[in-house]
Amino acid sequence: MRSFRLEAFPSNAPGSVLVHCGETKVLCTASYSTRLPGWMKDQAPEEARGWVTAEYAMLPGSTLDRKKRGSDGRSSEIQRLIARVLRGAVDLKGISGLMVHCDCDVIKADGGTRTTAISGAWVALVMALQAAAQAGDSGDLSAAIPYQVAAVSAGIVDGQQYLDLDYNLDSRAQVDLNVAANSRPSYIEIQGTGEAGDCSRSELNDLLDLADQGIQQIFAIQRDFLQSMHIDWQ
Amino acid sequence: MRSFRLEAFPSNAPGSVLVHCGETKVLCTASYSTRLPGWMKDQAPEEARGWVTAEYAMLPGSTLDRKKRGSDGRSSEIQRLIARVLRGAVDLKGISGLMVHCDCDVIKADGGTRTTAISGAWVALVMALQAAAQAGDSGDLSAAIPYQVAAVSAGIVDGQQYLDLDYNLDSRAQVDLNVAANSRPSYIEIQGTGEAGDCSRSELNDLLDLADQGIQQIFAIQRDFLQSMHIDWQ
Amino acid sequence: MRSFRLEAFPSNAPGSVLVHCGETKVLCTASYSTRLPGWMKDQAPEEARGWVTAEYAMLPGSTLDRKKRGSDGRSSEIQRLIARVLRGAVDLKGISGLMVHCDCDVIKADGGTRTTAISGAWVALVMALQAAAQAGDSGDLSAAIPYQVAAVSAGIVDGQQYLDLDYNLDSRAQVDLNVAANSRPSYIEIQGTGEAGDCSRSELNDLLDLADQGIQQIFAIQRDFLQSMHIDWQ
Amino acid sequence: MRSFRLEAFPSNAPGSVLVHCGETKVLCTASYSTRLPGWMKDQAPEEARGWVTAEYAMLPGSTLDRKKRGSDGRSSEIQRLIARVLRGAVDLKGISGLMVHCDCDVIKADGGTRTTAISGAWVALVMALQAAAQAGDSGDLSAAIPYQVAAVSAGIVDGQQYLDLDYNLDSRAQVDLNVAANSRPSYIEIQGTGEAGDCSRSELNDLLDLADQGIQQIFAIQRDFLQSMHIDWQ
Amino acid sequence: MRSFRLEAFPSNAPGSVLVHCGETKVLCTASYSTRLPGWMKDQAPEEARGWVTAEYAMLPGSTLDRKKRGSDGRSSEIQRLIARVLRGAVDLKGISGLMVHCDCDVIKADGGTRTTAISGAWVALVMALQAAAQAGDSGDLSAAIPYQVAAVSAGIVDGQQYLDLDYNLDSRAQVDLNVAANSRPSYIEIQGTGEAGDCSRSELNDLLDLADQGIQQIFAIQRDFLQSMHIDWQ
Amino acid sequence: MRSFRLEAFPSNAPGSVLVHCGETKVLCTASYSTRLPGWMKDQAPEEARGWVTAEYAMLPGSTLDRKKRGSDGRSSEIQRLIARVLRGAVDLKGISGLMVHCDCDVIKADGGTRTTAISGAWVALVMALQAAAQAGDSGDLSAAIPYQVAAVSAGIVDGQQYLDLDYNLDSRAQVDLNVAANSRPSYIEIQGTGEAGDCSRSELNDLLDLADQGIQQIFAIQRDFLQSMHIDWQ
Repeated sequence: MRSFRLEAFPSNAPGSVLVHCGETKVLCTASYSTRLPGWMKDQAPEEARGWVTAEYAMLPGSTLDRKKRGSDGRSSEIQRLIARVLRGAVDLKGISGLMVHCDCDVIKADGGTRTTAISGAWVALVMALQAAAQAGDSGDLSAAIPYQVAAVSAGIVDGQQYLDLDYNLDSRAQVDLNVAANSRPSYIEIQGTGEAGDCSRSELNDLLDLADQGIQQIFAIQRDFLQSMHIDWQ
Repeated sequence: MRSFRLEAFPSNAPGSVLVHCGETKVLCTASYSTRLPGWMKDQAPEEARGWVTAEYAMLPGSTLDRKKRGSDGRSSEIQRLIARVLRGAVDLKGISGLMVHCDCDVIKADGGTRTTAISGAWVALVMALQAAAQAGDSGDLSAAIPYQVAAVSAGIVDGQQYLDLDYNLDSRAQVDLNVAANSRPSYIEIQGTGEAGDCSRSELNDLLDLADQGIQQIFAIQRDFLQSMHIDWQ
Repeated sequence: MRSFRLEAFPSNAPGSVLVHCGETKVLCTASYSTRLPGWMKDQAPEEARGWVTAEYAMLPGSTLDRKKRGSDGRSSEIQRLIARVLRGAVDLKGISGLMVHCDCDVIKADGGTRTTAISGAWVALVMALQAAAQAGDSGDLSAAIPYQVAAVSAGIVDGQQYLDLDYNLDSRAQVDLNVAANSRPSYIEIQGTGEAGDCSRSELNDLLDLADQGIQQIFAIQRDFLQSMHIDWQ
Repeated sequence: MRSFRLEAFPSNAPGSVLVHCGETKVLCTASYSTRLPGWMKDQAPEEARGWVTAEYAMLPGSTLDRKKRGSDGRSSEIQRLIARVLRGAVDLKGISGLMVHCDCDVIKADGGTRTTAISGAWVALVMALQAAAQAGDSGDLSAAIPYQVAAVSAGIVDGQQYLDLDYNLDSRAQVDLNVAANSRPSYIEIQGTGEAGDCSRSELNDLLDLADQGIQQIFAIQRDFLQSMHIDWQ
Repeated sequence: MRSFRLEAFPSNAPGSVLVHCGETKVLCTASYSTRLPGWMKDQAPEEARGWVTAEYAMLPGSTLDRKKRGSDGRSSEIQRLIARVLRGAVDLKGISGLMVHCDCDVIKADGGTRTTAISGAWVALVMALQAAAQAGDSGDLSAAIPYQVAAVSAGIVDGQQYLDLDYNLDSRAQVDLNVAANSRPSYIEIQGTGEAGDCSRSELNDLLDLADQGIQQIFAIQRDFLQSMHIDWQ
Repeated sequence: MRSFRLEAFPSNAPGSVLVHCGETKVLCTASYSTRLPGWMKDQAPEEARGWVTAEYAMLPGSTLDRKKRGSDGRSSEIQRLIARVLRGAVDLKGISGLMVHCDCDVIKADGGTRTTAISGAWVALVMALQAAAQAGDSGDLSAAIPYQVAAVSAGIVDGQQYLDLDYNLDSRAQVDLNVAANSRPSYIEIQGTGEAGDCSRSELNDLLDLADQGIQQIFAIQRDFLQSMHIDWQ
């Protein structure tokens, strides 16, 4: 697994962190407001929940061949994945009345941008909800975010199994598995794709083993970073 | 598993089939042309490949609350899934020079539309490539499509495991797993989502067992249908 | 005139019928809600009306050369025609508070899709308003829909006059006339186009005679179908 | 019928005329280029044709309640009508290689904008093709435009028949008929709409009689204007 | 400086004037409503303001090579400039509750369209606010519009300085300066662009001297026009 | 003037620099390709030029109230400004055959983002053209970029003049002047806006004096940074 690092990187959003995974760099920010989406406006008070959404984009300089701005099918699919996983990390009743936006902007892409974004966005989310709690806009942080969440990729390239594929490996992979899990520990999202190949049941099991190990390592780095920021998550 | 049925349903596309999965009804059509996407135009002759793409849409009357027309994030994500899986079913060199469009239009939605679409689109694809072979636009059908492809969902609802969830089950599921596989047999795509819950390793294994059984049943129905249409696929 | 047939074809919309006109196949569904368009929200109670709108689309497999999805000028023009004609069939005060959407999706196109859509959409509309009456969302069906509505085309090809042109005739027609009428009987909409020719007053009269006959035949088929569905329209 | 007047109104387009019909004012311009639409590029030389298209828009100040810019269903329908009628006026082989754009911009709307636009756009078209002939970009004008084309509306309001309805009449009309004809004389396009009513065969005949008279008057005004501009059309 | 002329040109907007600047022709209309933009809805009564916005477009026939309809970066930039300048001319508290739209549609473009639009839009704005005052929708005109506003261009071509560049000069200019000023007199907006060159401090001073003279001439023509329209602005 | 700092910040673009101006942070990247815009494709060889374009966007976390993604009128206006200024800095014949994209993404906004972007984009542009020269894709760097380019704002707040306004000053400014200049030294672009006020000739002169000083300071910082990167620009 490549070096994974979280760097404080202030913007005007209450949650803001620059995530390094090998050469990949993703800026994750999280903001909150009280403007809930339209379909949530008529909730009964005792059922009141908040919401978490996510956006993912690649900056033009993030790819070797300049990336045109604007959403495409791939980024739309990835941001839906990130949002589902983050919602899986949050007790939506614990943030009732809050709309949280997590933005993942890829500054340099070298494989694994979606999993890097998930692992970083969870940290930005914690920072934003901590700020909300301090400002009195939200209740207790631990109640809102019961578990850590991280993600990692694993894959098979030239018949060999790898954890955390960089672009060079990823572009040659026969099978590519992205796993997001919480610290319960349980799987929240599993996406295995074999466009250039397929994968037997036992290969799938081996890849899951690899991913489990990688996620544990990222959990530790997340906890260290939050501690260094004096954020008392659990 | 609900009743799965393939019904001949002619349109102006060479591949055209109406798929019934319980109350869910999806019209799958497949057309081909020689207009390859721009990025494929400069292929070296010895590397020449064809391409398969897919579109997924819900007709307005397919849902209880009328579905507005037009692509959204969900349909974009689903059609990318369908296209990846179909490409995993085809030897793209075996259809060199051909661009195949598979269109999946949901007429009635009662859960499982994406997996139903995959299982039906594979049949429409075979019909279209058979027509291409007969018209001399493509080579041998068996070489182009070496394996069958089908998909099915499995999930956990109220702690119990189910194969092929209808809308009622799906909307209450803690975990929802969509599996697409080929008749080699190997997995091509696995998507497990736990927005309203999570899933342990052993639960994942049980769901994969269920899905494996469902896919075998659909393979048999696909073969029967092609035979009834006098399409000699392997 | 080609064979015209109405086939029950359940979706999740309360009105749902598959219309066959020769080889042309159009799925017509009708749904209702109480979400009136913005400009109707401030109606005085004694002036309260409902509204009927329509959408028309061709599925990708409906044409020999695959039809790209999405609205274009032609479909926008046709759906405005369908909506005007249907509103001409309904007493909008008789459906006050209701917004009815009629969706016409062409599954196979062989000429006459707009007139086939109108004749079928009227049936779907009746089915939906019958369901609304049964659910207590609307008043008496006969008051809401005082007349039958149907449409047919007539045209001049190679100097000869035809009723109900298929694609082969339509594409060679010098003049093409689409007529929508009610069972009062009166004309609701007449559209005569001579892009590849023009038409004298007496030729116009002959084409209107032909259309009058065709519309009577469709009226009879509509009544038979509603009877077979146990819908007591008048 | 209201006063109909053509006024020279130079822009940078070779055809440019301001049309007054009562209080209604439409600026009609026509430009030509040699950039044919994509689907015409592969014509056989002996089959070579040109093309005529049209656009229709209402300027924001043209309506009492400011009109938002941008195309909507109504303007799309109207510009398709204008384009069909103008193509019906031109021998497309006589303008082979030319793409002609006719633009109709409503400056003040008081009913009858689509028919006013047609009658004016035909004049702008003649001016542009005259300029093309003089510049050696096109052949003989008379061969390209064999007939005059004009349009007028007629309708039934409070049971009485009117020629050329202004906004006040049009908004209360039970039936509204727009007729475009050439000087052969034959009908090119007939559009009768009864959204707020319907129309018997004999009423239709009376309206056609009225329209025939109106069109003859406009033909005379068009000829006078072209003569005053020293354009020798036939 | 080229001939500058204001011509009464009625549309359905309360402010409506055709501006001629040499061969350049711009139709300026101004309409008002009480539909304030969303972000202004929660103003405290004692802080209540109105708003002025502007749109700029070129009609297709305004350019030698037909201009495609629709907003592009250049027109978006120009309409933002016009709106800022007009807001600088108005005491927004003096029009509290009113939303004013100024529309500038270029009919013939021969250089200087943005400055011509500003000088004309100010006149249309006065006409519209005069109408609002007469209709009782607004208070005193002089309080709302304390100063005149006009704009003009100046530039350096082939080393020589010019006031009010036509297209021929503008397309060869090394530096192009657009100045909008009020009759206080002070500058409201200065935009100097040297895409094909640059400009020293003393050249800038000379261009500002030229612009000051041009603006005084336009102020006089504006006052004469308003007087001829019996609008008593100050 | 606030602290201005350039920080090396590698992405996958050959030019990449993070610019700090007080609390404002802008990531400027520059990429090049040989895909010239369509309108440049038919240049005569002896007239062959390259092109420089720019895009400006604010990341969602850059503002206190989360900024929605996507281009709006303001960003379109700013990116057109940046592009014009950069083209004014480059000898387009010296980069013939190259298309250069400069992307300015605001990470934290505290006033002066457009001038900060210009000063940083010039540096990224030099880095990219240096890389192009080293890769043999372009000729001599000094010939392509004869002068330095930088920009700064000056303004009047509460009657007092300031150089380089932060958000707090900018939002209260009566007049705001943005000046871009080259090291010849001459002005390339001057934009003075007085939406909330106006400005006399002598105030304008004082603001230009302030801006001249600020630009000299930025020139020095640019030269130091390029030297530290071992880029030998003149």
